Amino acid sequence: MPRRTIQQFRDERAHGHARLLETEHLGLKRFMSLDAGAYRDGALSSRTKELLGLVASTVLRCNDCIDYHLEQCVEQGWSDPEIEDALNVALLVGGSICIPHLRHARLSLDELRAERPGPPGPPPGIPGGTGSAT
Amino acid sequence: MPRRTIQQFRDERAHGHARLLETEHLGLKRFMSLDAGAYRDGALSSRTKELLGLVASTVLRCNDCIDYHLEQCVEQGWSDPEIEDALNVALLVGGSICIPHLRHARLSLDELRAERPGPPGPPPGIPGGTGSAT
Amino acid sequence: MPRRTIQQFRDERAHGHARLLETEHLGLKRFMSLDAGAYRDGALSSRTKELLGLVASTVLRCNDCIDYHLEQCVEQGWSDPEIEDALNVALLVGGSICIPHLRHARLSLDELRAERPGPPGPPPGIPGGTGSAT
Amino acid sequence: MPRRTIQQFRDERAHGHARLLETEHLGLKRFMSLDAGAYRDGALSSRTKELLGLVASTVLRCNDCIDYHLEQCVEQGWSDPEIEDALNVALLVGGSICIPHLRHARLSLDELRAERPGPPGPPPGIPGGTGSAT
Amino acid sequence: MPRRTIQQFRDERAHGHARLLETEHLGLKRFMSLDAGAYRDGALSSRTKELLGLVASTVLRCNDCIDYHLEQCVEQGWSDPEIEDALNVALLVGGSICIPHLRHARLSLDELRAERPGPPGPPPGIPGGTGSAT
Amino acid sequence: MPRRTIQQFRDERAHGHARLLETEHLGLKRFMSLDAGAYRDGALSSRTKELLGLVASTVLRCNDCIDYHLEQCVEQGWSDPEIEDALNVALLVGGSICIPHLRHARLSLDELRAERPGPPGPPPGIPGGTGSAT
Repeated sequence: MPRRTIQQFRDERAHGHARLLETEHLGLKRFMSLDAGAYRDGALSSRTKELLGLVASTVLRCNDCIDYHLEQCVEQGWSDPEIEDALNVALLVGGSICIPHLRHARLSLDELRAERPGPPGPPPGIPGGTGSAT
Repeated sequence: MPRRTIQQFRDERAHGHARLLETEHLGLKRFMSLDAGAYRDGALSSRTKELLGLVASTVLRCNDCIDYHLEQCVEQGWSDPEIEDALNVALLVGGSICIPHLRHARLSLDELRAERPGPPGPPPGIPGGTGSAT
Repeated sequence: MPRRTIQQFRDERAHGHARLLETEHLGLKRFMSLDAGAYRDGALSSRTKELLGLVASTVLRCNDCIDYHLEQCVEQGWSDPEIEDALNVALLVGGSICIPHLRHARLSLDELRAERPGPPGPPPGIPGGTGSAT
Repeated sequence: MPRRTIQQFRDERAHGHARLLETEHLGLKRFMSLDAGAYRDGALSSRTKELLGLVASTVLRCNDCIDYHLEQCVEQGWSDPEIEDALNVALLVGGSICIPHLRHARLSLDELRAERPGPPGPPPGIPGGTGSAT
Repeated sequence: MPRRTIQQFRDERAHGHARLLETEHLGLKRFMSLDAGAYRDGALSSRTKELLGLVASTVLRCNDCIDYHLEQCVEQGWSDPEIEDALNVALLVGGSICIPHLRHARLSLDELRAERPGPPGPPPGIPGGTGSAT
Repeated sequence: MPRRTIQQFRDERAHGHARLLETEHLGLKRFMSLDAGAYRDGALSSRTKELLGLVASTVLRCNDCIDYHLEQCVEQGWSDPEIEDALNVALLVGGSICIPHLRHARLSLDELRAERPGPPGPPPGIPGGTGSAT
């Protein structure tokens, strides 16, 4: 069976997320809201925190979470070498049990880059160039 | 019984680490070397990767690893608000099961700051001010 | 690719379970038997323990186990608001890394409710109304 | 070295918890608040949800979290046989790697019972007798 | 949807593995190399270490890693009863949350045996017969 | 505070184990019995399965379980180089988050060897010499 594409992931996630939020459970809705807020600019930039989220998702081995944060990282201007350097930290910390997730991440990243014409580098207008979280 | 101090942690870690490295097992020695190398400057700065290591250690709930990376983060100029913002990501991702580790991290950070006279901010000479990983 | 349906899960589980039990390994057979026994009425009711099993499966992030216990919870008369309140505990304890599993659970629960005509409430004859494990 | 007593745990937790809440990080404070709210009466009773929290903490192998929820369970009237039946579910789900935590829980429960003169049964005034979560 | 076959797993793994190794990240390449080396003959035989890898993969619940090590175990002459006895250890240690992975392993093992005409016993030429890791 | 000695571990484990087994919960008692049985001679030797238990305990990062299986491994004649080769597999699979547990294992092993006068090699009478699980 062919690999789930990143667009299939987006569609499944959107559908499930919308269904979850139809709940009347206030606690559940507040958690989702708090989770979104954790990645907004604070003492650390949103850009930096998406990279933290990617590494957390990788050591905890969740492909859905990896795909979500990878897309955010790409949108926020992280380059492939920077993302690989972050995933390498996850690999050392989490071990070879994470390798299937590194394969998944590499193929998802290929799909994300294919969607965006242009080099796998930071978009214009992001200060700090490579290697900097701002 | 009183809490293990950060100096006790350093001493225990140093002793155990030295004993481990007396091994003749080449694979073990190479892993330790590779692990150290993952945090050196690369596409991402060492500074950024120590923060990634801290978050990975927190979601995986390892107090020894948290203490190690906290000390690196402090030495590399991350401020308390920045470290807290990173630990908040770990808390959202890893859940309340991580709260005992956040308590531990907060008290370790207090000890680390007490060791270094001066405000809990970035040392002079680190470009980029707060919020930037360089 | 379309989502695995709850019926597909049942079929796959039944097939794999039957194959496992063809073993001559007495320990393996005894474990499976002990596992089934843990959820029978004891000091706690079977009904309560299926809810415990659902929460344990969610914080440990196993979709197969979630689907199994969800079906037991529905059969034992737990309502959607009660199941959501239990899943909210799992979400707080296990963190946002569990969110993909909450999405999965919500959609599985929709399938289970669609299979059973009638309101998503406790079947007649279960004492204690909502909120009570008996 | 003697085992950490339940009173030592309370003191350490209170101290660390207070220190954490001195933060100015709104997200962190909101998470702690949301976490407390998850166990208040809702579709499920607080009593039931503390038992869910105990099982989640056991399969995730966190002694601090186990001690916290054990105390809540005792205060909310769960008896020893009921708590053991819940811990047995955690043992089957989480495996023998949880046994050290079952030993810890048993000894903590002994301490909690020793603090409260009277039989290890539900306090007067809790409807439903044994086996019922209300 | 039909179960992923072992051949599909091989193809997906080979494709992802090749893509990963196109990286210029030296750390990542070194980790992959170190990981392969851990299973070569050393103080323990390669044969024994593949069985260790299978058990580690099962308690950590990674189907990709289970399939990889199962194939190595079959190639290195472990019989079905021996593999089942190892998987039973994993089941006891890791708990019922591992049962879906035991079902997966059993069906993968059936596929591997179907590929190799002959009894599910050690190939000729492996000293030590059943039960011995050499 | 000084490191917990292996004798302290034995005493604590024995005390907690005895207290657990005073339970009237048949399921709990049966699990403990099944767990002990998993390591007796079967298709795999007891000796081999204790090594599997050690690796499972290390990737799951449980010091109590590591100490227990280390002692069994030493009693069953595994040498230090063989145990290190097994722990190296655990390290590669489980990652650097396991390093504190490798430090712990190394120091426990030193204590175990100090208790038993003689070289860190297999006791007389164990067939197969180094590297063989029989």
